[in-house]
Amino acid sequence: MEIINRELIDFKERKFPEKICFKPIGKIHTPFKSLKGIPIQTSMSNTKGIIEIFSEFKSGLIDLIGFSHLYCLYYFDMVRLPVPLQSKPFLDTESRGVFAIRTPFRPNPLGLSILKILEIKENEIHVDNVDILNNTPILDLKPYVPQFDVIKTDKIGWLKGKIKRKVS
Amino acid sequence: MEIINRELIDFKERKFPEKICFKPIGKIHTPFKSLKGIPIQTSMSNTKGIIEIFSEFKSGLIDLIGFSHLYCLYYFDMVRLPVPLQSKPFLDTESRGVFAIRTPFRPNPLGLSILKILEIKENEIHVDNVDILNNTPILDLKPYVPQFDVIKTDKIGWLKGKIKRKVS
Repeated sequence: MEIINRELIDFKERKFPEKICFKPIGKIHTPFKSLKGIPIQTSMSNTKGIIEIFSEFKSGLIDLIGFSHLYCLYYFDMVRLPVPLQSKPFLDTESRGVFAIRTPFRPNPLGLSILKILEIKENEIHVDNVDILNNTPILDLKPYVPQFDVIKTDKIGWLKGKIKRKVS
Repeated sequence: MEIINRELIDFKERKFPEKICFKPIGKIHTPFKSLKGIPIQTSMSNTKGIIEIFSEFKSGLIDLIGFSHLYCLYYFDMVRLPVPLQSKPFLDTESRGVFAIRTPFRPNPLGLSILKILEIKENEIHVDNVDILNNTPILDLKPYVPQFDVIKTDKIGWLKGKIKRKVS
């Protein structure tokens, strides 16, 4: 990628931000109209949905169809802040630190799901493995690249021996 | 995780947000003081760094040490908006849609890196495989769980045959 100066702020202007704001690039349409029954992870879901990208961003979708999966970054808009910094995850009976669990109830309620790309029609991406509430605001999409994103490890902390197929 | 009502907004109050704002939970200290020479992916880096989590969030780090890697979500604070919706990625000579590449120059400049956890001391997480500019604001951390996050695929679109070790 060419880094051109007009796209960068000046290093002298750089200041640590107190607040960081984004605008949704789209929304996701899913069969999950309430918080009950949503799979707790994409790997536990075979539900389909449609990511609607707002028309102004449509031209950014070109070339995405060549990939098997995408990272979908979104905003858990149902979460009321502040959240507890420790809580019981679905898959355990003990309280765990929020940064060691995948709960939506996070200081910054950012969601990350790896979704299978089925088809892209105009500004709609048809996806599988959906674990997201209907009408959730989408912030970003990135291609999933196993050469970058696959880590082989069995060091999974408190989750060891606890992963089973479950819904919320 | 127990979903308790005080942590959720009322469905009747739910409105699609125009703007979504977050506060950094910390910052990362890395040897990369300028944009030149940063590895383009964590998988191409063996540089170490330290994620400093602000003290108010420290208790959320408990149990994270049991995991091999974490997802680090951060804000590319050097990016000036708006960005082009198509541009040439590092690893190609042709222009590609922004949602099919991993460039920092995104409509919402959200970064995602998978970092190896070396050690956690108080509010500092020592990490390896760093590909992030010094002093970058951190938005969220999640544990990497291969059972959820490893996708076996060779369908990697325009990247096919183009992945080599490179720095920016």
